[in-house]
Amino acid sequence: MSESSGGATLPSVHIVGTGLIGASLGIALTRAGASVTVEDQSITAASLARDLGAGSVNEPIAPELVVVAAPPDVTPMLVAQALDRWSGAFITDVASVKGVVLADLQRLGVDLGRYVGSHPMAGRERSGAIAARGDLFEGRAWVLCPHDGSDPRATAAVRAIADAVGAAVTTLGAAEHDAAVAAVSHVPQVAASLVAARLEDLTEAAIGLAGPGVRDVTRIAASDPGLWTQILSGNAPAVRTVLADVAADLAEVVTALDDLGDGLDRDAPGARAVLARTIAAGNLGRARIPGKHGSAPTQYAVVSVLVPDEPGQLARLLNDIGEADINIEDLRLEHGLGIPFGVADVAVLPAAQLRLEEELSTRGWQVHD
Amino acid sequence: MSESSGGATLPSVHIVGTGLIGASLGIALTRAGASVTVEDQSITAASLARDLGAGSVNEPIAPELVVVAAPPDVTPMLVAQALDRWSGAFITDVASVKGVVLADLQRLGVDLGRYVGSHPMAGRERSGAIAARGDLFEGRAWVLCPHDGSDPRATAAVRAIADAVGAAVTTLGAAEHDAAVAAVSHVPQVAASLVAARLEDLTEAAIGLAGPGVRDVTRIAASDPGLWTQILSGNAPAVRTVLADVAADLAEVVTALDDLGDGLDRDAPGARAVLARTIAAGNLGRARIPGKHGSAPTQYAVVSVLVPDEPGQLARLLNDIGEADINIEDLRLEHGLGIPFGVADVAVLPAAQLRLEEELSTRGWQVHD
Repeated sequence: MSESSGGATLPSVHIVGTGLIGASLGIALTRAGASVTVEDQSITAASLARDLGAGSVNEPIAPELVVVAAPPDVTPMLVAQALDRWSGAFITDVASVKGVVLADLQRLGVDLGRYVGSHPMAGRERSGAIAARGDLFEGRAWVLCPHDGSDPRATAAVRAIADAVGAAVTTLGAAEHDAAVAAVSHVPQVAASLVAARLEDLTEAAIGLAGPGVRDVTRIAASDPGLWTQILSGNAPAVRTVLADVAADLAEVVTALDDLGDGLDRDAPGARAVLARTIAAGNLGRARIPGKHGSAPTQYAVVSVLVPDEPGQLARLLNDIGEADINIEDLRLEHGLGIPFGVADVAVLPAAQLRLEEELSTRGWQVHD
Repeated sequence: MSESSGGATLPSVHIVGTGLIGASLGIALTRAGASVTVEDQSITAASLARDLGAGSVNEPIAPELVVVAAPPDVTPMLVAQALDRWSGAFITDVASVKGVVLADLQRLGVDLGRYVGSHPMAGRERSGAIAARGDLFEGRAWVLCPHDGSDPRATAAVRAIADAVGAAVTTLGAAEHDAAVAAVSHVPQVAASLVAARLEDLTEAAIGLAGPGVRDVTRIAASDPGLWTQILSGNAPAVRTVLADVAADLAEVVTALDDLGDGLDRDAPGARAVLARTIAAGNLGRARIPGKHGSAPTQYAVVSVLVPDEPGQLARLLNDIGEADINIEDLRLEHGLGIPFGVADVAVLPAAQLRLEEELSTRGWQVHD
């Protein structure tokens, strides 16, 4: 075991598969002080991951934890192989579906005591080691799905690496996990793809009207068809349940629009009520999503500062922050009401928030939480 | 006519309705040097708009252009009143549905020669004058929908103010406009609302797994039910056409998931092909959306600069930009590959791009387009 920067002991880790998740995990764990080895069926992918700092390309003799970071369809086989190859190691996987992986493993008849399933909820539209980032897991959920026979030490080992890379650990049963990701990940993916598909045949003039709304709704429509076919297939019953509800709601909306016709001659109060209820229900669901700053990682605190909209003022602000020796984790600039000010949203580690606000107020900046 | 900063003459403008669009337009046109008056049925809203710099609260005697910036359902009546109140003025409206407004006006039997419909494609999840921004229209589409009897001078007047506030002007027939916004705006809204509605009943643990994907897909689900009931009702036939296609695709996906069952026993290659085709079709549609920088206004040029990830370095960068007397329009900071660098995306006016790159390279910064 090696000592992480936070003082906790980290297991030595072997990562099987250096795609986006495997390579990012290797980079993050290496940075955290863990001893990391990697392998991939593609020598090129493994070498690239190594060059990015994901660990050395070696077959380890006795890793303490093996992470199978492969597509869902080959995950059960690779987990079974890892249990066999390293008889003293705990094994986890990172597949985004958990029930089907566990069921497949149980059918293979191997002893699963050293295995615990897990799912780091991190990803990008881009895939492969080339898209890897050491901060991919920061502030993201990492779900542990221990089964009835899981060795608690296996669960503890996965929790240790999840903590080390800044993820927020949650424990759920495989079925509960699969139902949750159907709603918060898989169904949004299908919806984004279906909406984006309607754009393909538009004229140039029509697609030219696309604004930030449709951009946001369809951003994840750029995702990989091969990977997503596996994910949706692997979680078919749970995704089907949620999508069937969406389809029923959608049918109601289509009927309401039919009833409204050309909007000129018919009052159709019932139809309008359906539309209003649809948007209002969306309001309620949207309000359930935690965190007020959109995609900003939840572990950052955001301080908003009024900045005069002229050359040099933003630099003066950041100079003042630098002089206070506070590191900026993220920064967004938003122009204001047409008045000569912009608002800079400065994201810092929560521990630095109060000091940042004090330092800036002292220096004459107008600061808001 | 007053002289705008760009040298073009701007008509004197009266704005009827000081919600988000009306107030933002008033602020932007006032900044551009136009003479602007505003009115609203709510005295409070009109006063707030005035205080934000949207123009004076007066009943003008002879405005050259009247902009009706009201909800779709009252727009035809207000346009007809405006044609009557100011017999020398050109009139436009900003309703996001154009066919139903024009048809309603034609049924009222008024002479529409001085009227031309238009639609500035700008909005926010927040509404009202309090959310107004002088830069709301910058880089956004503004659609002109002249009808057969429109005076070309009416169209020219609307084009002049759209240009002055930085919008990109497009001309479309009312039917073509309505079909386009059904696909790029109204259907994405319905989809976002339907997906968000499925989040309402999730457990805390399940909703805690929400990441940036579902956040983006459901961002516009926070929109106003009252306004959107009007928009969807007003464009019912066009929205219905696109939604029916979405519903058909969705039914195919649900059937495929049914065929896959629990994913253990059935090969179902046909079902997998449906899923793959669905995601691939989304890829193609998504790729049609212009612009590579997401929601960044298209009129900005973005220069990416490598920044050492330590206190003071970003300040040094912005200092150097300030010393070069270049104003930053927008700025995003993205952390890199786990290497000790971040990437700062600096958005500037296109005219400043080349000079910015030169100035930064000279000062030793590593710069990318």
